[in-house]
Amino acid sequence: RYGYFGRSAPEVVRLMFCNVSGCLTEGHVFVSTSGEEMMSLNTRDTTGLRLLSRDDVEVVLLTSSENPVSKALLDKLTKWTGSTVVQVGAEPMDTLDPLVKQKKLEWRVVAYMGNEEADVKCLATAGLSAVPKDAPVQAINAAKYTCQRVGGLGAVREFSEHILLQKQKAKSQMSQDRIDRHHF
Amino acid sequence: RYGYFGRSAPEVVRLMFCNVSGCLTEGHVFVSTSGEEMMSLNTRDTTGLRLLSRDDVEVVLLTSSENPVSKALLDKLTKWTGSTVVQVGAEPMDTLDPLVKQKKLEWRVVAYMGNEEADVKCLATAGLSAVPKDAPVQAINAAKYTCQRVGGLGAVREFSEHILLQKQKAKSQMSQDRIDRHHF
Amino acid sequence: RYGYFGRSAPEVVRLMFCNVSGCLTEGHVFVSTSGEEMMSLNTRDTTGLRLLSRDDVEVVLLTSSENPVSKALLDKLTKWTGSTVVQVGAEPMDTLDPLVKQKKLEWRVVAYMGNEEADVKCLATAGLSAVPKDAPVQAINAAKYTCQRVGGLGAVREFSEHILLQKQKAKSQMSQDRIDRHHF
Amino acid sequence: RYGYFGRSAPEVVRLMFCNVSGCLTEGHVFVSTSGEEMMSLNTRDTTGLRLLSRDDVEVVLLTSSENPVSKALLDKLTKWTGSTVVQVGAEPMDTLDPLVKQKKLEWRVVAYMGNEEADVKCLATAGLSAVPKDAPVQAINAAKYTCQRVGGLGAVREFSEHILLQKQKAKSQMSQDRIDRHHF
Repeated sequence: RYGYFGRSAPEVVRLMFCNVSGCLTEGHVFVSTSGEEMMSLNTRDTTGLRLLSRDDVEVVLLTSSENPVSKALLDKLTKWTGSTVVQVGAEPMDTLDPLVKQKKLEWRVVAYMGNEEADVKCLATAGLSAVPKDAPVQAINAAKYTCQRVGGLGAVREFSEHILLQKQKAKSQMSQDRIDRHHF
Repeated sequence: RYGYFGRSAPEVVRLMFCNVSGCLTEGHVFVSTSGEEMMSLNTRDTTGLRLLSRDDVEVVLLTSSENPVSKALLDKLTKWTGSTVVQVGAEPMDTLDPLVKQKKLEWRVVAYMGNEEADVKCLATAGLSAVPKDAPVQAINAAKYTCQRVGGLGAVREFSEHILLQKQKAKSQMSQDRIDRHHF
Repeated sequence: RYGYFGRSAPEVVRLMFCNVSGCLTEGHVFVSTSGEEMMSLNTRDTTGLRLLSRDDVEVVLLTSSENPVSKALLDKLTKWTGSTVVQVGAEPMDTLDPLVKQKKLEWRVVAYMGNEEADVKCLATAGLSAVPKDAPVQAINAAKYTCQRVGGLGAVREFSEHILLQKQKAKSQMSQDRIDRHHF
Repeated sequence: RYGYFGRSAPEVVRLMFCNVSGCLTEGHVFVSTSGEEMMSLNTRDTTGLRLLSRDDVEVVLLTSSENPVSKALLDKLTKWTGSTVVQVGAEPMDTLDPLVKQKKLEWRVVAYMGNEEADVKCLATAGLSAVPKDAPVQAINAAKYTCQRVGGLGAVREFSEHILLQKQKAKSQMSQDRIDRHHF
């Protein structure tokens, strides 16, 4: 990477994809006798996504028809975190690759958080990727980072802080490079 | 099993019975001041049952009048997993043995998941059987497999993946047998 | 206990007092934006109380004005377990001692389950007593038995099975005594 | 502190500030399909705050617009614990320092419980301060005491008992001082 004709800039995450079901929720669905459903979010996780947005990382939440979440929950999420929502199919890559291209970005500046076997391709392709501690083995093997916390209980917050730390490191690396250039 | 006059085909699970209360739910019942009840499911577990259905394992959910679950919850479950529901009494075997015979199956191709002392006979009879980690000792002793996860938090998913793995092994064993027959 | 002029019968629990808040519930209260409250029960625990009732142990549930539970929850509990409910004050002994006397019982045949400092006197007086694992130190010190499970997640079931086991031991002891009497 | 011209009185906590979101709640927000939200409290924690009030420690609950809690929840809290509620901004110190001065108190007799980076300044300033076990590192480093329990599951109770114990020690110290003065 640090070849003769110059140094490439270290990567900085610009876009984060995050599964709602199983990452932002525990996967628990409460069903009442009257048929109403309820799912839970954790404010630590939504705070994490807000920290990313403030640090210029665009956050896109992913839902699928297999494990649907209610419109009410998505409304709260977008309101609390300032994120947008994208519905993906059995292979999220089919929907997300055009989206990444459309934003004129490359996958190495994309962070991906998933928790199912369907996420394997995206987890392997993204520059930074993570799964909650309680994800299936296939997803864990494909991800670059396994959170110490389970889905819906701080995993998203943990990954968000990991991304912010990486960004800080990359920035201090870039300043260092600039200093170096002035001296030599 | 691999006697002189030929090999019997390894067993492949064709039917799965699964207790709703305590296996698919945590056993938690939320009661509101207005008298409404709520129970929780986990999408990891319902995904597990869906994986079984796709792999040609018929899933039948069991409920009992002792630990009833709401009709709304059963409606969601059957919709999400494509399973049917059967109500059993104090001894589930009395209801399920006729059902197994009617489907022209034998108990050695049946998988059973339970979590109470009432399930002991079925757990001991089924070809494959499991209990969640938090089941009473009597049920644990009768089951062939004790999950590492508790009821309502991934135990059904764990057992489903165990069954699918057994099926894969049995199939590769059968292909191996066929190859062997061609060669000798 | 086994003096010269005969043997006293080993004690058999006849009555069980059980705190609702903190023993049968986790102590969690869910509050909705519309002001409705929700508390959770576990079917393992209510099954435990039902096992006691079937084995001729009368179960009396205790509530206090300090940590009130909703009428709807108590209605479900009495319906599921066949128990009665008694409201106690700051010192439960003041209400329960007259009740024990009125039933012509002695405290050594009473089992008590509590989880607060207010329960200390009753825990120390009852023949058998227990606290959930997560009770305050004072309550743990006063109880004869500390459950391995926390309140609302199987502690009551654990104590119920402990009582039933003690009863069985006492009965087999009594049969043994009767045999002995025939022989000597 | 124990200089030549006399001993200063040991500090006794007179005022407790406690974050609602993340300290009294788990940070979990349940969202129903109809858009209703639900958050949970633990009666052990509210009992802890009540014990403080009885021992003449004024309890003030803190909420922020970033992690809002419903009015219904705050109504229950103030009713159950006898506390008042104050809304703080991004830096709680800006709101709380005038309040402490207005009550003619000093920060060394104030206890503070928080769980976010925003609480760092208050955690470092207050005479006694604590965070739940699951707080972010920055908050843990700023606090004098890290609870063994997580937010919404007994952390507030634990800190309350810690404060009450410190008060008892301080009082016995003061009596000792008075005795000493009589003797010398």
